[in-house]
Amino acid sequence: MTVSLEDVKQAAERIAGRVRRTPVIEVAPGLTFKLELLQHTGSFKPRGAFNRLLTAKDSGELTGQGIVAASGGNHALAAAYAARELGVPARIFVPETTPAAKLGKLRTLDADIVQVGSEYAEAYQAALAARDESDALLVHAYDQPEVVAGQGTVGLELLEQAGMFDTVLVAVGGGGLIAGIATAIGDNAQVVSVEPALAPTLQRALEAGEPTDGAVGGVAADSLGARRIGSLAFEAAQTYGVRPVLVDDEAIVAARNELWRQYHLATEHGGATAYAALLSGAYRPAAGERVAVVICGANTDPATLI
Amino acid sequence: MTVSLEDVKQAAERIAGRVRRTPVIEVAPGLTFKLELLQHTGSFKPRGAFNRLLTAKDSGELTGQGIVAASGGNHALAAAYAARELGVPARIFVPETTPAAKLGKLRTLDADIVQVGSEYAEAYQAALAARDESDALLVHAYDQPEVVAGQGTVGLELLEQAGMFDTVLVAVGGGGLIAGIATAIGDNAQVVSVEPALAPTLQRALEAGEPTDGAVGGVAADSLGARRIGSLAFEAAQTYGVRPVLVDDEAIVAARNELWRQYHLATEHGGATAYAALLSGAYRPAAGERVAVVICGANTDPATLI
Repeated sequence: MTVSLEDVKQAAERIAGRVRRTPVIEVAPGLTFKLELLQHTGSFKPRGAFNRLLTAKDSGELTGQGIVAASGGNHALAAAYAARELGVPARIFVPETTPAAKLGKLRTLDADIVQVGSEYAEAYQAALAARDESDALLVHAYDQPEVVAGQGTVGLELLEQAGMFDTVLVAVGGGGLIAGIATAIGDNAQVVSVEPALAPTLQRALEAGEPTDGAVGGVAADSLGARRIGSLAFEAAQTYGVRPVLVDDEAIVAARNELWRQYHLATEHGGATAYAALLSGAYRPAAGERVAVVICGANTDPATLI
Repeated sequence: MTVSLEDVKQAAERIAGRVRRTPVIEVAPGLTFKLELLQHTGSFKPRGAFNRLLTAKDSGELTGQGIVAASGGNHALAAAYAARELGVPARIFVPETTPAAKLGKLRTLDADIVQVGSEYAEAYQAALAARDESDALLVHAYDQPEVVAGQGTVGLELLEQAGMFDTVLVAVGGGGLIAGIATAIGDNAQVVSVEPALAPTLQRALEAGEPTDGAVGGVAADSLGARRIGSLAFEAAQTYGVRPVLVDDEAIVAARNELWRQYHLATEHGGATAYAALLSGAYRPAAGERVAVVICGANTDPATLI
């Protein structure tokens, strides 16, 4: 089970018209933001969700039973949105810690919402059980080939839009986005993974030589709060030589505030995490190095921006 | 005193590297947003300010006395920013009604800030008096050729980025932005002016056959609160057949909230006013009509977004 560049290209064709082609902006010489927070539902997640659902629709796996999904919040929004667009029911499992900003939006999307446990992993177990009791399609938050291929379309767009760049910084939770982006552009640019120091799933796996469970915490846990890196992300990180970087919560909070003050972008903590590596100096580009940063999530309470 | 397309093209060359090339996003088939709220200081205003300052620098009019400017807030931020970038002092007059979100940012920009009166027109009189007592350069918020030519670069970019479109919706206060955009693209597309019903400076002037004073009010008064349309905007509106539309405060508030909920853009009321014409139906595109909307201001208290 692996994902190829060809899979990502096919995903781009499959989901065209269903997702927004989000813009890039060069905010300073050699520094480009990919504004994926402007995607439908406020994160990159609809790309993978649509690719999973549309692939399953073609193969007959998507039935009137609809879908089940588990999520800290963003994948829930995307899966519910994609299901509604395709006219199938969605049963969505989220932890009780999902923030109000995400839960409130989710309630507008006609899904059957179940809150269970205190973190993503518990919601996922409940989703698996629900799937086993029905013919519903499981739409994984990060570790399915169709989902990874869909998220990779962010990378294809970036290559087309940003011209030449040397490095792309991507936040990592379960790793769906970075797996897709590495597959899409890992041969063209250095891919840097940025993780909260309190949830270093990829760095821990690279050190251990395999994905392992760990504790989850910190300000970005609602979007980057997987216990363990996905197997597809681990494989892609090894294949494409992803360089792992960690940032502490203070750096994430500072980056989120800076994105608002200087760039007028309202992001959630997970959406600001990749930029935190640059702002804090956890990642220091070489002289003349051209850097792209994926700003990947907007689902936040704007009242907390300062 | 008039502004030509050639003036706008020269402005684009002059300010290149000083301002951000802001992106567009096609949010639905045939509907494109120009994301000018992502400009430095959170509005389009630096384009005109830089063009005014750099032109005056070349001609020797910009001296160590620096600049004076009056503004409801956004032009203040832009003028102070441009002055700081060019290393000259700035004395900025704003009314006491300037919102905290703008005043707070202004205080970070090294300008000498004077609060006077309850609306833009009073701050402007104070700025004129200050200019007369010094050799400082007056940087008008909208009614100077260099300022209009600078704002017009938004239109040039839109033409290059958005491909073919039929209509562009632009919010109007004093009219610097619409004057520039009409000059830049009025021969290529229908330009629609959108004004708050409580501050209809352009529509009133078009009906009267000349710019006239009027009362100023409503939720967007801090950015669209000129008493009278600029003479350059009035002339451009007549030359290019700008079509005026009014929106009430309720429509502006609804558009601002919709821009946040559906598009993840945090805008001020003035920045949402052009979109309000579309959302409210005050402007109804024909079948197949391709519409561009300039989203032009981000300087807001995000805690008020719902």
